[in-house]
Amino acid sequence: MSLNFMRPNISKPTDLVGTVAAVAAVDAIWLERAAKHLDRLTKPPGSLGRLEEIAARLVAIRETEQPVCSKKAIFTLAADHGVVAEGVSAYPKVVTQQMVLNFLSGGAAISVLARHFGIEVIIVDIGVDGEFGDLTGLVKRKIARGTKNMAREAAMSETEATQAMRVGLDLAKDAQEQGVTLIGTGEMGIGNTTAASAITAVLTGRPAGDVTGRGTGVDDAGFLCKVRAIEQALSVNSPDPHEPMEVLRKVGGLEITGLTGLILGAASRRIPVVLDGFISTAAAAVAFALEPNARDFMFAGHLSTEPGHSALLGFIGLNPLLNLGMRLGEGTGAAIAMSIIEASAKVLNEMATFESAGISESQA
Amino acid sequence: MSLNFMRPNISKPTDLVGTVAAVAAVDAIWLERAAKHLDRLTKPPGSLGRLEEIAARLVAIRETEQPVCSKKAIFTLAADHGVVAEGVSAYPKVVTQQMVLNFLSGGAAISVLARHFGIEVIIVDIGVDGEFGDLTGLVKRKIARGTKNMAREAAMSETEATQAMRVGLDLAKDAQEQGVTLIGTGEMGIGNTTAASAITAVLTGRPAGDVTGRGTGVDDAGFLCKVRAIEQALSVNSPDPHEPMEVLRKVGGLEITGLTGLILGAASRRIPVVLDGFISTAAAAVAFALEPNARDFMFAGHLSTEPGHSALLGFIGLNPLLNLGMRLGEGTGAAIAMSIIEASAKVLNEMATFESAGISESQA
Repeated sequence: MSLNFMRPNISKPTDLVGTVAAVAAVDAIWLERAAKHLDRLTKPPGSLGRLEEIAARLVAIRETEQPVCSKKAIFTLAADHGVVAEGVSAYPKVVTQQMVLNFLSGGAAISVLARHFGIEVIIVDIGVDGEFGDLTGLVKRKIARGTKNMAREAAMSETEATQAMRVGLDLAKDAQEQGVTLIGTGEMGIGNTTAASAITAVLTGRPAGDVTGRGTGVDDAGFLCKVRAIEQALSVNSPDPHEPMEVLRKVGGLEITGLTGLILGAASRRIPVVLDGFISTAAAAVAFALEPNARDFMFAGHLSTEPGHSALLGFIGLNPLLNLGMRLGEGTGAAIAMSIIEASAKVLNEMATFESAGISESQA
Repeated sequence: MSLNFMRPNISKPTDLVGTVAAVAAVDAIWLERAAKHLDRLTKPPGSLGRLEEIAARLVAIRETEQPVCSKKAIFTLAADHGVVAEGVSAYPKVVTQQMVLNFLSGGAAISVLARHFGIEVIIVDIGVDGEFGDLTGLVKRKIARGTKNMAREAAMSETEATQAMRVGLDLAKDAQEQGVTLIGTGEMGIGNTTAASAITAVLTGRPAGDVTGRGTGVDDAGFLCKVRAIEQALSVNSPDPHEPMEVLRKVGGLEITGLTGLILGAASRRIPVVLDGFISTAAAAVAFALEPNARDFMFAGHLSTEPGHSALLGFIGLNPLLNLGMRLGEGTGAAIAMSIIEASAKVLNEMATFESAGISESQA
């Protein structure tokens, strides 16, 4: 499998309002049909636990009794953050650009995991503060060289936020056109746990200190800088929790905004989307705030050790599939979960029934 | 990959006493070496959570800085249980034999999951109450046509228990000879949660009612039968918790005893072994009781919804990798976990280092 996301989508631009309007809740009748079929398979009813729950939701998302998830793609969006100037990260800003090169040469964790699980990774420069020249494999959709410092002003202009959202919508459209049946979210951006914590504080109404973690591993002084920067960003920008796009624009990031677009685009096209960790879930929380039906198309891949993650999952109402103590991002948690989700579809499609295998049924 | 386990191993019989003596704890120096290498990889230290913990343990088990787990095999041992006569199961005994045929034709849950994750499944008849004739793909090591009814007498004779243990030891030996680098445990046996609960009650000292669940799904009356049968088995046989082999023989099963042998054999040969659910962990608990060092070679694949499972994991001191609400057995939980364990090895072997990728390190 080799997907092609190289051509910018300019002929028929995708539209946020139309996309949100197209996100409909799944129909419970498909869940019932799936449950009936699952109970005919050669296993005690319910004994595959969450694999059965996942399989049923795939049936409802795809509106077919034989959903297939084998064409899997993770979109890893990279962007920089002006708030890094406040000393919020353990790593210098240049690492965002360096890691994009690492993704492309196949040496990053997401590269290894995606190869292992048979997932294509699409790396998108949506806002890295640096130029890449003529690089094979990189999707070039740079909106700006990073956000502004949200501790002093809005992270993005309205135009930038709209453009970043459109990149995500375009990626979902391209994914559908190329036959992708399971989408994963990923990101890279030094400073982006600061933005995700700010979004979490606004949407959940929790204090910044409660939903902020160590990110890539700041020390005590860095952690205090980080909480202070978030508090300042909220005070300077006063984002309105009832205006999700405004929250994204003021205290979000270009990659986070792109992911919100990708998630909404996937939901509107009935493609299941697997969330990675904290940053991806911040993007998903904004998508959910814009249109609650979008939740039906989301799977929470794993629970990050970042303290804000469980607050966001609670806000959306998602139960993570894995809890492996991970906090790397890039799409790494999504990659593992996607293989389990694909396996759930195969259970539904490939297992024998009691009747076909001639097996005696329960006497209970 | 196609493994061959068809020839019984009669030339040099493997030996339990020698095997147990050969199980040495892993050397902490390998864990330290692994930790150092993991911190050189292009990710914040510790950010891959349990994947790093697994990778380090694989290094220590294999005693190499580049452990490979790509040749993966699950051994699904099938046997019947005399205690089924007490009405402890929702399914008739014949389902054990029927499911073996389902495994061989590829329609069972373990067949689907193993195909998906690239794992070979070896089906072993170690005690099914029925004849299979000339079947391709089945490893025929039948010790007896099921156990005796443990509610009235010992489940096995001493000879049967020794022979069943030897089957497992032989399988581990064959696995090593065929280059298997990651072993999973699986089982099929109508009535075997009753035996596993009895073992759990003896080893942990907990009342039968606390460590007994619904198995494949018995109703309230069946559940009461099941608890009563276990209490009767403990009273009739009075197994001594300090004599693990006696516990297995009196209230265990042929497949459980075989799995204990497989686990000890794997540990003695330094092959990591991934436990499936409740039944497999009962076998592992006996292995641990015989030789505590065996724990170093075990990975708990998942947490079953059977109430006795967490008691057994606590007894051994293992933290399960997954919690997906599963309770099917066959090796299904192990299959999912094995792919994650293989991925953990690949992270170690394939990720770039900060130095090789030219990436700036943490300033913290």
